[in-house]
Amino acid sequence: MCEANAYISKDGQEELFLEAVDVVEPIKGDEYRLTSIFGEQKTVKGKITLMSLVDHKIIFEAAQG
Amino acid sequence: MCEANAYISKDGQEELFLEAVDVVEPIKGDEYRLTSIFGEQKTVKGKITLMSLVDHKIIFEAAQG
Repeated sequence: MCEANAYISKDGQEELFLEAVDVVEPIKGDEYRLTSIFGEQKTVKGKITLMSLVDHKIIFEAAQG
Repeated sequence: MCEANAYISKDGQEELFLEAVDVVEPIKGDEYRLTSIFGEQKTVKGKITLMSLVDHKIIFEAAQG
């Protein structure tokens, strides 16, 4: 399968936010809904700073405040 | 490999923009640099409207103007 893990970068640290992400959809502004291959959904507020699909990695920078 | 194809949606049509995308990096604002697994780089101006990794699809909506 070709899912990726989503990480949130905060204060220079990358924290795993959701594993096995299939779908990334913007909701509004810098808010995205992530859906994993298991159907789990989580919402993240922040900007995408890097996606590397071959490395199975999506990195978000957390929105301030 | 877990790359995806990038499409640009314009006037309701999806046009293939770059095949086998590995890395997606924002440059500034709504501008992204895409790098394929073959090392080909292309820049796209627009918003990400949908990514479905299992379907190997990243869709951008072209910026107006």
